[in-house]
Amino acid sequence: MRADIEVIELDKKFQRFAEHWHPKIVAELNNSYVKIAKLKGEFVWHKHDDEDELFWVTAGHLVIKLRDRDLSIGPGQLVVIPKGVEHMPVAAEEACVVLLEPKSTLNTGDVESDRTVDAEWI
Amino acid sequence: MRADIEVIELDKKFQRFAEHWHPKIVAELNNSYVKIAKLKGEFVWHKHDDEDELFWVTAGHLVIKLRDRDLSIGPGQLVVIPKGVEHMPVAAEEACVVLLEPKSTLNTGDVESDRTVDAEWI
Repeated sequence: MRADIEVIELDKKFQRFAEHWHPKIVAELNNSYVKIAKLKGEFVWHKHDDEDELFWVTAGHLVIKLRDRDLSIGPGQLVVIPKGVEHMPVAAEEACVVLLEPKSTLNTGDVESDRTVDAEWI
Repeated sequence: MRADIEVIELDKKFQRFAEHWHPKIVAELNNSYVKIAKLKGEFVWHKHDDEDELFWVTAGHLVIKLRDRDLSIGPGQLVVIPKGVEHMPVAAEEACVVLLEPKSTLNTGDVESDRTVDAEWI
């Protein structure tokens, strides 16, 4: 736990980076991270064997493809993808998303690739 | 885990109840609940011995009093109160807040009182 108790202004944090698909850590609690990410285009199909993952859209629009249907998520909406469920996030235009997931979670889940990145604090 | 993967629209969930200081569960992940609450007035001083707690304000304005200072939190801002830190939420006018905390978390932490309530799904 970082020592200071800090009020986090999400808009200001989003303004501090531009790259897509590189989640940044803004807070930690109970062995999980709150991350923010800008998403645009298609990601990769993957799943997280042991971790549920929350997506909360704050701007733009995100589609999370599941194997049997698509989830459409706009500002003020959130969804939890349970562990083990294959999914692929897609954003036609840039979407700003808040993620909540255990510290152990890798962005590409069980599929390590050139899209795999370490999240860093911002 | 509830079986279905559901996109949760926070505004609609907030419209479904009016009472203050009665958190409602809207999602679960990794042994934690995402809860929403309407807060107005003063709560009680308390702490959570084993659980960090996230407050994310979506409407209105929340003050979280700490023993040494006040945190002021508006829409689009969030704060994590680490385990063991005494705090008292106060909202001069109604504030809509999203909470993230372990399933074991009691709203009044270590201080059971008539303000203690069980969260229920909404």
